[in-house]
This record gives sequence, C-alpha cells and structure tokens, in this order.
Amino acid sequence: MTQFDKRNISMMMDFYEMTMANGYFETGGEKARVAFDVFYRRNPDGGGFSIFAGLAQIIDYVENMHFSAEDVEYFRAQNIFSEGFLNYIANFKFHGDIYAFPEGTIMYPNEPFMTVIADLIDAQLIETAILTQVNHQSLIATKARRIVRAAEGRFVSDFGARRAHNMDAATLGARAAFIGGVNGTATVSAGQTFGIPVNGTMAHSWVMYFRDEFEAFRRYAEVYPKNTTLLIDTYDVIHSGVPNAIRVAKEVLEPAGNRLRGVRIDSGDLAYLSKRVRKMLDDAGLNDCKIIVSNSLDEFTITSLLSQGAAIDSFGVGERLITAKSEPVFGAVYKIVAVEEGGTFTPRIKVSENVEKITNPGLKDVYRIYDADGHAVADMLALIGEKIDLSQPFRYIDPVKPWKQRAFANCTARKLFRLYVKDGRRTENLPTLNEIREYVRQQLDNEIWQEEQRFENPHRHYLDMSPNYYEMKMNLLYKTRSQMNG
Amino acid sequence: MTQFDKRNISMMMDFYEMTMANGYFETGGEKARVAFDVFYRRNPDGGGFSIFAGLAQIIDYVENMHFSAEDVEYFRAQNIFSEGFLNYIANFKFHGDIYAFPEGTIMYPNEPFMTVIADLIDAQLIETAILTQVNHQSLIATKARRIVRAAEGRFVSDFGARRAHNMDAATLGARAAFIGGVNGTATVSAGQTFGIPVNGTMAHSWVMYFRDEFEAFRRYAEVYPKNTTLLIDTYDVIHSGVPNAIRVAKEVLEPAGNRLRGVRIDSGDLAYLSKRVRKMLDDAGLNDCKIIVSNSLDEFTITSLLSQGAAIDSFGVGERLITAKSEPVFGAVYKIVAVEEGGTFTPRIKVSENVEKITNPGLKDVYRIYDADGHAVADMLALIGEKIDLSQPFRYIDPVKPWKQRAFANCTARKLFRLYVKDGRRTENLPTLNEIREYVRQQLDNEIWQEEQRFENPHRHYLDMSPNYYEMKMNLLYKTRSQMNG
Repeated sequence: MTQFDKRNISMMMDFYEMTMANGYFETGGEKARVAFDVFYRRNPDGGGFSIFAGLAQIIDYVENMHFSAEDVEYFRAQNIFSEGFLNYIANFKFHGDIYAFPEGTIMYPNEPFMTVIADLIDAQLIETAILTQVNHQSLIATKARRIVRAAEGRFVSDFGARRAHNMDAATLGARAAFIGGVNGTATVSAGQTFGIPVNGTMAHSWVMYFRDEFEAFRRYAEVYPKNTTLLIDTYDVIHSGVPNAIRVAKEVLEPAGNRLRGVRIDSGDLAYLSKRVRKMLDDAGLNDCKIIVSNSLDEFTITSLLSQGAAIDSFGVGERLITAKSEPVFGAVYKIVAVEEGGTFTPRIKVSENVEKITNPGLKDVYRIYDADGHAVADMLALIGEKIDLSQPFRYIDPVKPWKQRAFANCTARKLFRLYVKDGRRTENLPTLNEIREYVRQQLDNEIWQEEQRFENPHRHYLDMSPNYYEMKMNLLYKTRSQMNG
Repeated sequence: MTQFDKRNISMMMDFYEMTMANGYFETGGEKARVAFDVFYRRNPDGGGFSIFAGLAQIIDYVENMHFSAEDVEYFRAQNIFSEGFLNYIANFKFHGDIYAFPEGTIMYPNEPFMTVIADLIDAQLIETAILTQVNHQSLIATKARRIVRAAEGRFVSDFGARRAHNMDAATLGARAAFIGGVNGTATVSAGQTFGIPVNGTMAHSWVMYFRDEFEAFRRYAEVYPKNTTLLIDTYDVIHSGVPNAIRVAKEVLEPAGNRLRGVRIDSGDLAYLSKRVRKMLDDAGLNDCKIIVSNSLDEFTITSLLSQGAAIDSFGVGERLITAKSEPVFGAVYKIVAVEEGGTFTPRIKVSENVEKITNPGLKDVYRIYDADGHAVADMLALIGEKIDLSQPFRYIDPVKPWKQRAFANCTARKLFRLYVKDGRRTENLPTLNEIREYVRQQLDNEIWQEEQRFENPHRHYLDMSPNYYEMKMNLLYKTRSQMNG
C-alpha cells in the first residue's frame, strides 16, 4: 500500500489502549468518567525547565479522531474484541474535555501540564497520540531554546530534515524548534505548513557539478544576485573558497550594484576558519558579508566557538537539534488521577518506593506564583476550585521539605490551566505559531530567573502545594499504604 | 490547517534543493545527467555493520512525487524562482533511475548502497526525502538488531510509540525494528500498515481504575481468558502483584481450563524481581506463565539482566529502541559522483584533508566477496561494468593499505546493486516485510562473521577496490589536487 500523502493518525496508538477499552466496555465501565494527568519527571540535558509544545496538533487530533470500516476490520481480525465493542468503535468520537497550559508555557517536572477529563474509553484511546506529540515537540522546543541561548542573539536556522526520524519529525520538529526560538528552517514542508521562514542556498553538489569553483559561484550569483550566499568549503576554504567568493563579489555582483550576502563553511575548524575568513572578507571591503557555519552544532559547540572568538553571524543547526541528540527522549507520562464516583471525582494515587514516582492525585489547579517584580518564584498545586487568596501572606507546603513553614507574601498567582477542548470540540481559536514563539520569549526574558536558564547546575524551580492539597495527598497515601499492608 | 490524515510528502525537502534546481534550470543544466551516491561513514554505537532499510518508502515516494498548484504558489511567493522554473515544477515527475542494495542488506561504511542516475534537477530534488527515510529506518533497524542479539532468542517487542519523534517515527520505526528482528510491536498503525504482529495488554491505569488489584486482574481475566497477561507492579510486585495474579490463575482461569499466560514487570530491579517472581509462579504450578519486562531497556541493560540470570521470557523495548537513544543519528549522505559529458559519465570527487572524507568517485559496481564457506570476507568497489572474474585469484587493493598486494582466491562475488526504478517507475515487485526480515536474519546467521556482530571492538569489514577502480580514483585525485594548487 502507498503511504503517499495520506495516513491514518487515529490508528497510531499502543494496542493496549484497545485491549483496555474493550475490557472497560465488556465490564460496563465505558461510561465511567475519569481524569488523566500528563506530566514529566525530569528536564532534558539537566536543564532547569522545559517548553510545552504540540498542543495544536493534539487538539486537531482529538477533534478528528475516528475509525474507518477498514480500521474496524483490522481490529476484528485480531479475534479478541467483542462485536459490541467493534460497533462502538465504528461510531467513536472523542467527547471529553482537555485542560492544558497554553502552548509554549515554561513547565517543570511533576506538575500536570494537561488534564483529560472524559469517559474512560475516550480518555484511554487518546493516550499514545497525546504522549507522542507532546514528547516530540516539547523535546525539540526545549533543545532549540538551549541552542538559541548559546547563540547569543545570532541567527539560528534548523537544517535537520535529513537526519530527522522521518517526515513528521522533520516538519513538526521544525515547528517545535521555531517555538523554541530558532529564526528559520530549511525544511520546505515546515515553511509551507506553518509559515516558518525558509532558507537555503547550495550544497557541495552545486560546486562539484560545475567542477570549477569560481564558475559555480559566478553562475549562482547571476541567478540570485540579491541573495548570494556561497558554500566555500568544497575544496579548500582559505586557498580556494574565499578567493573565489571575493572574486565573484568584485567581478559579478558589485558592478551591478549588488553585494555578496554571505559565505557558508560546513566543515573544518570553524573557530579558526571563521576568523581567517572574516579577515579576508574585511580586507576585501566585504564587511557586510555574513559568515554562516554548519556541521554538527549544538549548544555546547556553539558556546565553545563563541568563547574562542569565532567570527560567526549565523548558525545552521542540523542533526543535534532535530534529534535532540544529547538526550533524545522526553518522558511525559499519562496517569489516571481521579475516577468519578457518585457524582464527585475520587482521587487515585500510584505509590512507589521512590518518592519521586508517587503521583499527585486528584483534580487540581496549577498556579504560577510571581513576586512583586514579576518573576516566577514557584508553581503550586491546589485542590480544584480551591480559593487561593494572595492578598495576604499565603502559607504553602514544599513537599520535599514539608516542615519549612514558609509563605508567599506580596505575590500574585496565575492559573495555568485553560479549557481547550469541551465535549470533544475546541473552545477557542488557538494562537498563531508566531504568538506561541513570542510567548516563550516573553516568559524567558521577563518571568523566568536566569538562574533557571543556565546550563550548569540550574536553579530547581519549586513545585509547592497548598496546605489543603498536601493534606489530601498525604491522607490518600496513608490510606493506600494501609490497604496494601492490610 | 489540519494535518489530520493527509500531508504532502513532496514538500519535505531542504529549501536549497529548490534554489539549486532553479539555478540549474536558469543556467541550462536541467537536462544534464548526473549520478549521486548514497553512503554513510560510521556504524552507530561502534558496531561492525548497519542494516539498509527504507527502500520501499523511497520507491513509493519517487513514483508519486509531484507539486500541487498550492505548492507552486508557495514557491512563487518566495519571489526568487523564475516563472519558467515554476511551470517546470508544476509538471514535474521524477524520471530517473535508482540502483540500490536490496532492502535489508547488511552494509558498511563508505560504500554506496544506493545510486541515483537522473537529470540534474530530478536527482537534486529527491535528496532530502531519500536521506531522511534511509537515515531513520536504517538507524532503527540497526539498533533493533543489537537489542535482538542481546536478547538471545527471547521475544522482543517494540513498545516505543509514545517516545518516538512523532507519528511517522512510531509507525515507520516499528517497520524498521521488525526488519532488524524484533518479533512484534505495540503500535497499531504499524500492525495495520505493515502486517507486523501487534501485542499489548494493560497499563497501570487499568489497575488503578478498579482500585483493588485483584479485582482489576479478575476483570481482565474474565474478558481475555485465553490471553491473560497481568501488569503486576502497580503497587508492590512481590507482596501484592504476584499473589493476586496467582489467585486469579487459580480462582478464575484454571477452573475454566485456562492458564495464566504472563505477568509483566515495568519498574524496579528487573533481575531480582524476575527471579523472585519466577520462583513464586513455579511454586504455584504456573511454570508456563511467561515473565515480560519493560522499562528503559536496550542491548546493554538486556545483556546485563541476562548475565545476572534474570528469569525473563520477553522484553518490551521502548524509548531506547524507537529513538536509538545511545546514538540517535544515522549519517548517510548524498554526494554527486559523476556527470554525463558527451555521452559518458565523468567522475567527480570531493577532496578533503581527512582521507575518510574523500568520496569514491564515478559510477561503480559494489561486490560482496564470499569465501568457500559462504562467509562475506570483504566488499569491493569496481568500475561500472568491469568484468570481475574470480575463477582464478583476483588481486584487489585495500585503499587504507594499498601496498598489501593480496588476492581473493577460491571466492565468489555477488553484485549488490539492483535496478529498482527505471525512468521513474519501479521495475519489479518488492519483497514483503517478512521476506526482508528473513533476508536480514539469513545474512547474519550464515554470511556475516560473528566477529563483525559482537558489540565490543567488532572486526572491521574490508572495503577493497579493484585495481582498475583504484587507479581511476588515484588519477582523479591527483588531477583535482593539481588543479586546486594551480
């Protein structure tokens, strides 16, 4: 079968979602209402925060999810599902509610950034697709931000498509990288689908096809006189590439009133070469010619290059961005936190010997607490609907050190959850990609401590609890442990 | 715009493919015929070989590639392409030829495993899509094989969808993992699209929903009496999970003539727990109950578990397989190697100070050389169409040690390239996925030295050259270097 231009996103799920769904159907549980939280436990690369990305695609997915006759036939052929269930699935539409942080929100470990409240089967069937989307895009957005930070205001473009984990990873990875702050992408599908600025000029094949490097440069400059960026490392940067580029600037571009826009170096010692090239260009009067570098760059190599005084205006970042090579897994999980019983949601908790793996039970609100200067000093979990009044000092609990007895004073609180999907339909128009990217930038420039943003030993953001929430959790933990031991 | 169920694969390319294509069009080069090789330089994870995967999707892509009116409009809006070129693109069909190793062929660094011979624009436009596909699938197939080898014949299933780099990575990654030897997948879309066996039973949410673990297990066993696998680590494996599983076996399954099929452990010390669980199951007469484990497994953790005598029948391998976490980049490249001039292909070479980065120029044949026992002793590059007669000793050149003066004696040669696409259309029916997987297994069981397959310091496969090919390359290198220095 051909996969060209079509596919079935609804079927991208773990098989156990279906075995459980059929099990719930058969045991009469399909109308039970439940709540699942989505959260993660650790920031990639030892960082101090992550960026939530992928929400727009999740909403698109839940609105459109359905099973075709062919899909139902596939499940029937597995010989383990009831006809009643197969009929249910054939008419399935997602009818639940989704609360989430706005896309682009800076987020921290162990706090839910999304809550699904839905009938049991609805909530279960969307697990895999939600996790895949949010894990991929949050991973790349968070990585991109690190790289952009290292570049200290220089232009950064995603060059990663050819090393991405297939087509979606290239296109949606470019979207996530743009959210994280890169300035453009080389990936056309991402430019077209999401309106991201695209860029790109030539590969080594252009130079090798014409054989003579000067000839190759001249031809390019004649076709693109206003936008001539030349790849200068096919043969020898210093002895061939730069002299030929300068000659094209002088003989082809400048006589017609044009300037050489840039040169790109894709191999070799980029610190040494960029400084040599800068000097050669400047000596030729080409001070406005930009130097673009590429070749296995990431936040670490960029930091190193700039600390060596490399003369670089623009970075093309490929495989280490689009695969998040240094840590290519973002570990968000989807955990049941409450079940409706007799009209109210009863919290559920997963216990563990490892205190970090004990889930935060129940329906809850998540607040970001700001000091008088507008800095985010902590996040706080509260019971759903609990009144949080910060007009006077508000005592909170740090669950890691519950004896601390501290209070938020002169602070304000922002509720982070919004209702994005109600009964299976989106509740509002979503922000544009540029708005999401600007929201990320604004948080990082104005709200999030620089100490949380540094790469080495970043400050750990506090996740506190309201006294009421903490008490509920402790009581439930005690009760659950008692039952297990009894 | 919605991405649901449709997308445009043709536009998944680097923008520079288009700027070059327009440049070739404008400089009159669009009808020049060229050859590009696809090859890679290093095996992931320090391994001794890689597995070529993704060919079926590449052929599907080149057969269907096209640009819609909307696509052409997108390019027009970039304001750098000529109307003549845009018109050319609107009617574009790929008309080239593709030679490749059969999918699933064991491959080695620096040898071409695919050659595209096409008009310059055709060859350039398909670069990114070919690289993305082959890099992703070869990466995962190669990683999967390492994990399967470590599992020493035990069942291995792909559980990675939720940590994959989006939808394609989950689905096509499962395909590649199956080629590499895993036995099944949890990813439904991969099961449906490619006929891979799917598996999966329950998540922690099933146990937490019912709250009482025994109740949860009992309900599952009642729905799936012939296929009951229970997740036993939600609360406490030894004190709760196993006793409840045994009770379900005795009270629910066995009275109706059924057996408990398996238990799954997803956390904790899998070596210790699996041995304890095995003993408890055996003591209860459940010797046929399988133990399945999951949780951040890869070839290293599996090797360690088995060396500790872990009692494991089956591995569910997630994030570290589907992202190839230890080395998530496969670095295949696409390099121009020849340009048709006056009816014959003239070789092109890319020189570099780094000898490993000098390309192998020209059209060529790739042979796998087998000894009398059928072991692959080397691969060899030869001039295209060169007669390779192994009926008597055949002198070859090891380009790393060209003075060696050795010969293949009592050997046979297999030509690895086949013509898969002729003038843009596939030339033959492709093998089924099971045939590809079996081809991989057969090579690794019968042809490829175990010394190349070990993880530690694997033997390096030789890539030799026929004397004629070596001479051509050396002459071209000399000529190119002379031109540069002149």
